[in-house]
Amino acid sequence: QLRIDVHSIQWKRVLDIESRFLRHIVVGLGGKAGGIPYESGFEITTASEIAAIHALALDLMDLKRRMGEITVAYNVDGEPVKARDLKAEGAMAILMKEAVKPNLVQTIEHTPAFIHGGPFANIAHGCPSLAAIKLALKLADYVVVEPGFGADLGLEKFCDIACRVGGLKPDLVVLVATAKALKRHGGVRRRDLKTPNPEAVERGLPILGKEIENVKLFGLLPVVCINRFPFDAEEELDVILDYCGERGVPAAVSEVAARGGKGGVDLAKEVLHQLERRRADFRFLYPLDLPVEEKIRTIATKAYGVSDIELLPEARRAVRRIRRLGLEGMPINMAKTSLSLTDDERRKGLPSEGYVLRVTDLRPMTGAGFIVAYCGEINTMPALPTHPAAERMDIDEEGRITGLI
Amino acid sequence: QLRIDVHSIQWKRVLDIESRFLRHIVVGLGGKAGGIPYESGFEITTASEIAAIHALALDLMDLKRRMGEITVAYNVDGEPVKARDLKAEGAMAILMKEAVKPNLVQTIEHTPAFIHGGPFANIAHGCPSLAAIKLALKLADYVVVEPGFGADLGLEKFCDIACRVGGLKPDLVVLVATAKALKRHGGVRRRDLKTPNPEAVERGLPILGKEIENVKLFGLLPVVCINRFPFDAEEELDVILDYCGERGVPAAVSEVAARGGKGGVDLAKEVLHQLERRRADFRFLYPLDLPVEEKIRTIATKAYGVSDIELLPEARRAVRRIRRLGLEGMPINMAKTSLSLTDDERRKGLPSEGYVLRVTDLRPMTGAGFIVAYCGEINTMPALPTHPAAERMDIDEEGRITGLI
Amino acid sequence: QLRIDVHSIQWKRVLDIESRFLRHIVVGLGGKAGGIPYESGFEITTASEIAAIHALALDLMDLKRRMGEITVAYNVDGEPVKARDLKAEGAMAILMKEAVKPNLVQTIEHTPAFIHGGPFANIAHGCPSLAAIKLALKLADYVVVEPGFGADLGLEKFCDIACRVGGLKPDLVVLVATAKALKRHGGVRRRDLKTPNPEAVERGLPILGKEIENVKLFGLLPVVCINRFPFDAEEELDVILDYCGERGVPAAVSEVAARGGKGGVDLAKEVLHQLERRRADFRFLYPLDLPVEEKIRTIATKAYGVSDIELLPEARRAVRRIRRLGLEGMPINMAKTSLSLTDDERRKGLPSEGYVLRVTDLRPMTGAGFIVAYCGEINTMPALPTHPAAERMDIDEEGRITGLI
Amino acid sequence: QLRIDVHSIQWKRVLDIESRFLRHIVVGLGGKAGGIPYESGFEITTASEIAAIHALALDLMDLKRRMGEITVAYNVDGEPVKARDLKAEGAMAILMKEAVKPNLVQTIEHTPAFIHGGPFANIAHGCPSLAAIKLALKLADYVVVEPGFGADLGLEKFCDIACRVGGLKPDLVVLVATAKALKRHGGVRRRDLKTPNPEAVERGLPILGKEIENVKLFGLLPVVCINRFPFDAEEELDVILDYCGERGVPAAVSEVAARGGKGGVDLAKEVLHQLERRRADFRFLYPLDLPVEEKIRTIATKAYGVSDIELLPEARRAVRRIRRLGLEGMPINMAKTSLSLTDDERRKGLPSEGYVLRVTDLRPMTGAGFIVAYCGEINTMPALPTHPAAERMDIDEEGRITGLI
Repeated sequence: QLRIDVHSIQWKRVLDIESRFLRHIVVGLGGKAGGIPYESGFEITTASEIAAIHALALDLMDLKRRMGEITVAYNVDGEPVKARDLKAEGAMAILMKEAVKPNLVQTIEHTPAFIHGGPFANIAHGCPSLAAIKLALKLADYVVVEPGFGADLGLEKFCDIACRVGGLKPDLVVLVATAKALKRHGGVRRRDLKTPNPEAVERGLPILGKEIENVKLFGLLPVVCINRFPFDAEEELDVILDYCGERGVPAAVSEVAARGGKGGVDLAKEVLHQLERRRADFRFLYPLDLPVEEKIRTIATKAYGVSDIELLPEARRAVRRIRRLGLEGMPINMAKTSLSLTDDERRKGLPSEGYVLRVTDLRPMTGAGFIVAYCGEINTMPALPTHPAAERMDIDEEGRITGLI
Repeated sequence: QLRIDVHSIQWKRVLDIESRFLRHIVVGLGGKAGGIPYESGFEITTASEIAAIHALALDLMDLKRRMGEITVAYNVDGEPVKARDLKAEGAMAILMKEAVKPNLVQTIEHTPAFIHGGPFANIAHGCPSLAAIKLALKLADYVVVEPGFGADLGLEKFCDIACRVGGLKPDLVVLVATAKALKRHGGVRRRDLKTPNPEAVERGLPILGKEIENVKLFGLLPVVCINRFPFDAEEELDVILDYCGERGVPAAVSEVAARGGKGGVDLAKEVLHQLERRRADFRFLYPLDLPVEEKIRTIATKAYGVSDIELLPEARRAVRRIRRLGLEGMPINMAKTSLSLTDDERRKGLPSEGYVLRVTDLRPMTGAGFIVAYCGEINTMPALPTHPAAERMDIDEEGRITGLI
Repeated sequence: QLRIDVHSIQWKRVLDIESRFLRHIVVGLGGKAGGIPYESGFEITTASEIAAIHALALDLMDLKRRMGEITVAYNVDGEPVKARDLKAEGAMAILMKEAVKPNLVQTIEHTPAFIHGGPFANIAHGCPSLAAIKLALKLADYVVVEPGFGADLGLEKFCDIACRVGGLKPDLVVLVATAKALKRHGGVRRRDLKTPNPEAVERGLPILGKEIENVKLFGLLPVVCINRFPFDAEEELDVILDYCGERGVPAAVSEVAARGGKGGVDLAKEVLHQLERRRADFRFLYPLDLPVEEKIRTIATKAYGVSDIELLPEARRAVRRIRRLGLEGMPINMAKTSLSLTDDERRKGLPSEGYVLRVTDLRPMTGAGFIVAYCGEINTMPALPTHPAAERMDIDEEGRITGLI
Repeated sequence: QLRIDVHSIQWKRVLDIESRFLRHIVVGLGGKAGGIPYESGFEITTASEIAAIHALALDLMDLKRRMGEITVAYNVDGEPVKARDLKAEGAMAILMKEAVKPNLVQTIEHTPAFIHGGPFANIAHGCPSLAAIKLALKLADYVVVEPGFGADLGLEKFCDIACRVGGLKPDLVVLVATAKALKRHGGVRRRDLKTPNPEAVERGLPILGKEIENVKLFGLLPVVCINRFPFDAEEELDVILDYCGERGVPAAVSEVAARGGKGGVDLAKEVLHQLERRRADFRFLYPLDLPVEEKIRTIATKAYGVSDIELLPEARRAVRRIRRLGLEGMPINMAKTSLSLTDDERRKGLPSEGYVLRVTDLRPMTGAGFIVAYCGEINTMPALPTHPAAERMDIDEEGRITGLI
C-alpha cells in the first residue's frame, strides 16, 4: 500500500558489531516466506540517524516527532515514505524513553560530566546531546563540550548544526594540538612519530594555523591546548608555543593525561583569563537560505581551505531531489575523513592550490534535520582487522579481564 | 588459514528483532571490501546456541569452555572449526560475565522468582538456567521450574537434557490444562474457543491422557492443574476433573490469573499432599549410548506417540557426519512444532495410526552438548504480521505507554 | 502494469552450457539500472518449455499460439501472466521460423532420418517433434520413433502426451535391452559391468518383465531388441532370450553398433513378422478427466509399479492452484529420474513392496499443454564434473579435432 | 588447486540478449550443489574478449593461442589464471573453427563484401576481422574497412591496434558526415533534427574539423563523404561543402542510401583521384614503449582534444598491476562513449578548455593483446526500453515477418 520502490529504501539496519561482511548484502531471499529481495547493508549503531536525532532532540516528544520524520524510503512516485507512515515512531519512542535522559558520570577526581549522545561523526554531527549540554548549562558556570574530530569538522558541525538547533552561543574554543599530530602533517611516518623532530612539527604548523583561523571564522576566541605526551621533546613544544606567541594566540601546555586535574590548571587559568578579557561574537558560517551547493562550497572553501567543490552526478541528482522535496533549507552535515582537510585521507597539511573537493552524494536526514554531504570514501560499517582485538581478550574464574587494551 | 568451507558455515548472526527479510540473505557482497560472499541469515537472539549454553552452564568458566566448543563452521576437509579456533571464547565470556548470574525478581505478591535463561524452545531445550535452578534449590524447600511447551517437548527436554547435565532429580510434574486448549484439540476453530462446548473438551481429552502418560514415563508424579479462564463453563471444567478422577490422577482448578496467589492454594495443597504420599522414581527416556536414530525414534514413539520416524536424505548425511566426528553420545534436542504431537502443526489430537515423523536435518550443538533434530518446518527467525503490534504502541509526554498489550 | 509477483516468476533463462554456478542466482542487482532483484536460475536449453512446444507444435501458427500461452509469471492476485501479455510470441515465432521445419539427415548407410526436436526428457516429454513424425508417416511405410529413456518414462510420455496431441496410433514397441543394464539392476557395480555374469543378468530380468508389461498396458506389441556389446558373453544373451522365449515375447539380438544395418536384419524381420501377425489395440493409460492426483497415481502405480504416491505440501498447493486456474484437464508429464523405476536413482530393480513415490511440486506448462509432476530431485541445469570433457579436446592447424569421445 | 580469488574473476558469461537484469547478479547460490557464490554479470556476446580476439587472429592456431592467453581470474597471490590453465583453449577453438573463416556476402547490386568480426566498439577495438581484411587485400585493388564509431574512436583503434597487429598500412580515410549529426553537435534537440537549420550545421562544424585533423595525425588522406538524408536541405549540405572547400579538404555528397551504387560515384571518383594525386605517410599515434598513463594521455589530448586525463584510484591500482605483470607494452583500447569527444555523452561539440577526461579503470586483455581503459560510464550489457521492439514484431502463416524496422 505504501508502494515503496525497492531501490529507494534509505533505512539500513544497524548492529553494534563491526563486520565487513554486512556492508553489502541482499536480504529477502528464500522465496515468498523471506519477503521481497533487495540490496541493503548494516551500519554500526552510532551511524544510525536515530543517534543523530537523539543528540539533537530537546525532549521525548521532540525525539518522537523527529523519529517519525525519518525518511525510510521513497515510493514509486519519488515521494518520501516516513517512519510515521509506518506508524513506527510510538514504538521507537518507547524504546528510547530512558535513553533520552542525560546520564551523569564522574571522573576519578570526582568532577561531574555528562556522557550522553554519540552520533558517528563520520556521517552525523558528532556532538554530545543538546539535552545534556542544556542541563549542564543550568548546573555549572562553565560547560565544556567535546565535538568529534578537529576544527574543520567537529567545530563546524557543532556551530552550524547543534548550536543552530539548540540556540547555543559558545564563547571560546580550546583547540587541542599535539606535537605528534603536527609531525604527521609535517610528513613523518607513523612509526617515527615518537622520535623528537622539531623541524617536522614546524612543517606541520600551518594546519594549526588553519584551525585557529576556523575558530575566528565563527567569531570565537581560540586557546591552544598543547596536549603533552611522555615522548614529546621540550623543543617540539616550544615550536608550538612560539608559533602561537608570534600570532598573539593564547596557548598552554596540558599535562592532564600524566598528572590529572593538576596538569590542566595552567590551561584552565588561560581560558578563564581570556573569557574575562575578551568577548566572542558568535556567528554561523553560512545562512540556511543559500542553495545547497553554495552551503557546501562555503564550508569547503572556508573551513577546509580547498579551492572549490564538484558535485558528482549522483550528488547532482540528489540536489534536484532535495529541491523538489523543499528540503534545501536544512543545514549541511559534511561526511568527510577526519585525517585530512581534504576528502583524501592521505593528503596531509594544507590542501594544495586548486584542490577540488568531490561530493559524491547527498542525503536529506529529515528526522535529524540536516543534509549529509558525502565526500570521498566514507564508510558507515567499519571492518575488523585480520587479528581483531577480541582474540587477545580473556576472563578468568575470578572475573579478571585481560586484553582489553 | 582455517580453510573454512563457505557452504559449511554453521554460525548465524542473531538480532532481537523479528524480520522475515533477514531469514535468507547473501552477505559479503560489494567486492573485496565486503568480504567473501556466502549465503546466511539471521536468527532471533534466543535461537542462538549461546542462549542454550547460557541455560546449561554451571558457572562462568563452564560457559567459556562451552562457548569455545561451538562449531562455527567446517573446513574444506569436513573437520569442525570451533569458536576457540577463532580465539573468540574469551571475548564472548567477557560479554556474558554478568548475564551468567541468576537474577532474582518478585511477583506483585512478593514471591521471589528467578527469571534467568530463555533458550528458544523451538530449537533449544527451552528451560530456565541450571544456575538459577541450582541456586533456588539452595534457597527454598520447593522449586518450581517452567520449561517451554507441553509434556511432549518441554518436559522431555527438561528431563533428558537439563536434568542430565545438571544432575537434577525432579519429583512431581504440574501439568497445566485448559478447557480452551482441549477444545482446540477437540476440533473447535480458533474463533469459537470462548463458546462453552463440553463435548469438544471431551474429544480433546486423549491428549491430556497422553501428557499424563508422558509424566509417568519419566517415573514422575503428575498433578493436573486446570487453569481457569473467565469464559470457561463449569461443565467444561467438570469434564476434565471427572477424566482425572476416573484415572486416579490428582487434579485441581487454579484461579491464579484472576485471584492471585489465593487462587492457587488448592493446587498447592494437592501438590504438597502428593509429595508427602508418594515417591517419584525419576528416569531418563533413553540412554545416551543408543545410536542417534534410535534415540530420536524412542522420543518420537514414546513421548509423541507416532508410529515411526523417517530420516530424510539431509538428516541421514548428518547422522553419518555426527558418527564420523564421534558426537553420537550427546542427548537429542527435538526441534518440533509445539502445536501438535506430530511435526505438522495442523494435526490435532493424538497422532493417527501409522503416522511417521519426518526428521529433515540434524545438527550437533557441540557447545550446548546436544544434537538438534529438526522435524517438519521449524523457523528460527519469526516474521512480523502485516500489522505488527508496534503500530499500536505509543508514549505521551508524561511517559505513559499505551498499546503494549 | 502487469503487477508481476517477483516470487512467482516461472520463466527461467536458458543456455546451452552446463554450469552449477547458474542453478541458483540472484539477478537484478546493482541498483535501479539493474532492474528489480529476484531469485532465479538458468536451465539448459532443452529444458525450456519452448523445446517441448517445438516438439508438439503442428505448424508455425500452432507454435506461435502455444508460445503465447506460456505462463511466464503470476501477478500479485495469483493470475497467470502469459507470454502473449508481454507481446512476445510474435518475435519468438520469428526466431523459431526455420527451427519448426523438420530436418532430414542420413545415416552413413544413407538411410534417411529426421533429427528434429529434443525436449529434455527429465522435465519435458522427451520425444522427437510431431511435425517430423507426421512428415515421416507420409514418406515411409514404417516409422521408428525414439523417445527418451525406458518404457516407464519415454514410452508413457510418447503415448499419453505426444500421441494424444498428435492423434498418433503406434503399433509395436521395440524394447531395447542390454546385458549391461540388466546386470546393473541385478546389483553389479558400475566398474564390474564388463565382466560376464549371467546370474546378475538373471537377477535384473524382472525390470525387463516390467517394461514388457508396460508395453502391453498401452495395448501395443512388444519386441525385445537385445543390443549386443563387444564384451557381452553368449550365456548372458541366452539368459535374456530364454526369459523372453518362456513368456512368448518375441526377441532378437541386434548388432547394429558393430556391423551396421546388416546387424539389425534379424530384429527388423521379427518386427515385420509381428506387425503382420498381430494387431495392436492402442489405448492411453489414463483419461484426461481424472483429478490431477489420480492421473499421477495411475502412472506411478501402473507404469512404475510403486504402491502409492504422496504429494508434499508444495505439490498440494500446486494442485489447488491448477484447479483454481481450470487447468486440471491437461495430461501429466512426469519429471523423474531415468535410473530407477522409483524417484530415488539408487534403487535398482523393481520397487520394493509399499514404496511411496513422492511428488514434490507440480507446474502447469500452459504452452506445451501438460502438467509437469516433479518427483525426487530433478535438476534442470546439469553440473560439470571436476574434469570436464572439454579439458581433453583439441584441434590442430589442419582442423583435426581430438578428444571429443 | 588454482586458488582463484572469488573477487578477481575477470571472465563474465555472455548472451546475445539485452537485459538489465543480468548486469549484476550473484551466482553460485543454493548451497554446495550450486558452486561457490560470487558476484558476476552477463555481457552481450560482442563484448566478450573472444569477439576481439576473433577479429585480430590471423588463423585458427593464432586464435587458439590467444584464447588460451585470456586472463580468466587472478589467484589469491595476484597472479593471472589464464584460459589455458583451465585447459579450455582447445575446446574453445573447436567451437570457433568455422567462425574464424571470413564469410563473403554481396550487396543487392552484387558487390562482394566480407562481413566478419564485430567486437563491441564500446569495449573492444570495433573493427572487422584482420583475416577478412587480409583476404580482401589479396582479392581486390581497393579495400574499404568500416571501423565502429567516429575518427576519435574507430579510426584511432583501427590504426593503433588493428593495423599494428596486422601490419596494415592504410592510405585514405573516408570521413562520413551528416547534416543531422552536425546539427546535434550544434545544439539542436533530437526531435528537431529533421528541420532545416544551416546555422546549427555551422555551429557543429568544428567537430568535423577535429575529425579531419585526426585523419592527418595518422598521416592519412581525408575525404569527407556527406551522407545525404531525404530531409536534408541543400543549404545545409552547402555549409559543409564550403567548410571543406575553404580548408582544401576534398568532399563529395553520397546518395548511396537513396540511389544505390550510382549515388556513390562522385565520392568514389574523388577517393581514386586523391589516391592518385597524393601519398599517405601512415604513422601510429603513440609508441608502445610509453608508460600506460602516457599512452592514454596521448590519445585523449591528441585524438579527443581534451586538456588532460585523470586516473581515478581504481585505475591507478590497475596501472600498478599491469606494470607488475609486465603488460605495459600493449596498445590501449579506449572504452568511451561515441556520442561525445569527452567521456560525458551529453557534452556536444569540441571539449571545453581545461576538460579532464576521467579514466575509471583499466583491464589488460591478454588474449586480445590490448589494455582497455574505461572512461566515464561504459556499459557492456545494454538494457531494453520499456517497450522493446520485439513487442511490435510478428510473423503470419505464410512466414511474412512484420515489425522488424
